[in-house]
Amino acid sequence: MAVSTKPYIGTRDFFPEDTAFRNWMFGVQRDVCRRYSYEEYAAPIVEPLESYLAKSSEEIVSEQMYRFKDRGDREVAIRPELTPTLARMVASRAQSLPRPIRWFNIGNFMRYERPGRGRLREFYQLNVDLLGSAHAAADVEILMLALDVLRGYGAGPEHFEVRFSDRRLLGAAFPDRSEEALRSLSRLVDKRDKLKAEEFDDLLAAELKSPGERAELEALFSWSIDDLGGRSAELDPVAENLAFIQSQLTAHGYQDSVRFDPGIVRGFDYYTGFVFEIYDRDPENRRALFGGGRYDRLVGLFGKEDIPAVGFGMGDVTLENFIRAHDLVPKDLAQPEGVFVALMSDDLREDTLRVGLQLRAAGLPTELSLEATRKFGRQLEQAAKKNRRFVVILGESELAAGQVTVKDLVRGEQESVPGDGLIAYLKRAAGG
Amino acid sequence: MAVSTKPYIGTRDFFPEDTAFRNWMFGVQRDVCRRYSYEEYAAPIVEPLESYLAKSSEEIVSEQMYRFKDRGDREVAIRPELTPTLARMVASRAQSLPRPIRWFNIGNFMRYERPGRGRLREFYQLNVDLLGSAHAAADVEILMLALDVLRGYGAGPEHFEVRFSDRRLLGAAFPDRSEEALRSLSRLVDKRDKLKAEEFDDLLAAELKSPGERAELEALFSWSIDDLGGRSAELDPVAENLAFIQSQLTAHGYQDSVRFDPGIVRGFDYYTGFVFEIYDRDPENRRALFGGGRYDRLVGLFGKEDIPAVGFGMGDVTLENFIRAHDLVPKDLAQPEGVFVALMSDDLREDTLRVGLQLRAAGLPTELSLEATRKFGRQLEQAAKKNRRFVVILGESELAAGQVTVKDLVRGEQESVPGDGLIAYLKRAAGG
Repeated sequence: MAVSTKPYIGTRDFFPEDTAFRNWMFGVQRDVCRRYSYEEYAAPIVEPLESYLAKSSEEIVSEQMYRFKDRGDREVAIRPELTPTLARMVASRAQSLPRPIRWFNIGNFMRYERPGRGRLREFYQLNVDLLGSAHAAADVEILMLALDVLRGYGAGPEHFEVRFSDRRLLGAAFPDRSEEALRSLSRLVDKRDKLKAEEFDDLLAAELKSPGERAELEALFSWSIDDLGGRSAELDPVAENLAFIQSQLTAHGYQDSVRFDPGIVRGFDYYTGFVFEIYDRDPENRRALFGGGRYDRLVGLFGKEDIPAVGFGMGDVTLENFIRAHDLVPKDLAQPEGVFVALMSDDLREDTLRVGLQLRAAGLPTELSLEATRKFGRQLEQAAKKNRRFVVILGESELAAGQVTVKDLVRGEQESVPGDGLIAYLKRAAGG
Repeated sequence: MAVSTKPYIGTRDFFPEDTAFRNWMFGVQRDVCRRYSYEEYAAPIVEPLESYLAKSSEEIVSEQMYRFKDRGDREVAIRPELTPTLARMVASRAQSLPRPIRWFNIGNFMRYERPGRGRLREFYQLNVDLLGSAHAAADVEILMLALDVLRGYGAGPEHFEVRFSDRRLLGAAFPDRSEEALRSLSRLVDKRDKLKAEEFDDLLAAELKSPGERAELEALFSWSIDDLGGRSAELDPVAENLAFIQSQLTAHGYQDSVRFDPGIVRGFDYYTGFVFEIYDRDPENRRALFGGGRYDRLVGLFGKEDIPAVGFGMGDVTLENFIRAHDLVPKDLAQPEGVFVALMSDDLREDTLRVGLQLRAAGLPTELSLEATRKFGRQLEQAAKKNRRFVVILGESELAAGQVTVKDLVRGEQESVPGDGLIAYLKRAAGG
């Protein structure tokens, strides 16, 4: 019996037409990162398990991680996210890397989840991070970069909304809580939109000490940035940061997409301050597209010193849904391009291959017919199926006259061209 | 205690300077594949285990594969190579993909090996394959493409040598052997260079039936293409194919790098005909850099029909060693580039950020100082450390006069430029 042609559940095969779309999608991300002068880095697909035990998300470590022992009995995990790896790498060269560090990566990750809309077991993610500055200007830069990626897809305030806050708000509202209790409360608040109202209420009642605390939490959710000032010495710098972020975004034309939302906390345990999530405005898809935030104490777990850091991760599955749902895919991704060189007879193989190699040397994508046929119609058909734009034909009589025939499948025109002018002709025709 | 900063054994962290080199190395591969009109595809990092059980290399499946059971008790492997996945993908769309199929991928793979020179547990590999043609012209195209990648690095016949053969030679020399016995013999011949002479002799004696067979095998190793013709009906088409390949390579200027070597068989069980390996000419590093061949019966394992196929894989570890050993790394990979915009005081933040955003919108890689300092020397130092070429300074008095100062760290020149001419000035200066 034949072996199954299906990929492993929750993963995707990317055929060339899928890859063309993805190269465009990731190309926009790369271009924006380059404009912001972020440098590309990369990391292994597996990590020592201990990289995640300290401060990732409990749900990811205990339920969603692909982990195993290698043949040497080492505990290994396929990376479920990149931030711990980034922290490890930065810590390993903390003394020599010039700061601030501005880095990005586009890579794949795995989580053991029930596959569904916007959720797969293997996904790709753009990670962008700025390390070495505790200034709120770093938070602003990271958020602007994220928004400029969305703008790069042609998306605007009508398509998405940014909600931002600061993790420290919860601690300021409940100053008697331990860090662990706050983390637990944060995780629950983070799941608020995913849970049914009654379920959330029950779980919240278990976290809180009194109905009064529930009222305080509801009040917190309704605060504006202006409400934060003058409440406590802990809250004042947080309020100042949030006001700075809001004012910078407003001054530079990002205000229509952005709103302060104290209910935003993010799921990862390592976040320590500024956090944001980006939501689709489509009422059919009111979920977080992606998010990020500040994690000032993660690098310190791997090294001698804490390095303040802020960043975001933008996953490809929700992003692709967003781009397609809002019809933002460019129309010209699958334009016919390149040259198909027909092989009319075996006697002409050497001359035909020579022309093909010349076109390739000149940088023109050139596909060569491998088997000779005088049925020109079949060769045209093959060229059209492979989405080539030009067909070049060398016949015996043409060759004797130093001519070749070029057919432009887009314009439907056919011309006879001197052999030594072929490259210039094709470059001009492709450009026009 | 801090968590270790080391990556998992046998894997690599790629810092930005490593990534710049790799983007160049992979960029050459992408460019050559594009010129040959090969389309990019991609596949999951894990595969159902059964994809490999049928016809990969026994050594890989039993000793080198990272395999585990997922939380749903499915047998999964981190991919040790791409060809079985490619065969699975092509089989899944055998009816609709226009042929011949010309595809390439650059991806990462894992094998459980003892890390050492040219050998790591995680490596990257360019895979290039042509499916749907049994013609030797397809073998020629794949080999020329591989050679053009090496030429793209500036390598020539003085740096490497191609040795090619056909797997069917062994079967023709030992016509009474079963397929399984031939595979076993092939595996041993493939390891000839890696084993000590006595060890090889002992293992060979166990595979062969008589000293006479040993003599036949030695004779086979010394055959030239001309020796092959007229020996048997099975050998004749093989001889014709090899002669065709040799003549095409000679006609188009590849003859200096290429030689027929009947000792080449390749390690994977799925090869069925033409095979080649590329060797470093450096006497210190006389090992196969990479190789490929024809595998006409692999796709059929996943689908209803066999599809003839030929391809190669070029691994990054041996390739990088080769490029560095022969000093082929371009000198301009780490040229200073982009713009550093200094922030001279907090009052100037909005104006400074506005200029930065304008430069980015114009496509100039632009890094912004996050924290204000009037110590211009420190800002220059930071720009130089980050390898930026231009420093843009907005001071209060300059701003009032509508001017900005630009310092070119490469030329050591400093100029005052009108604010509205800054983008044009920087683009001109960077181009020159």
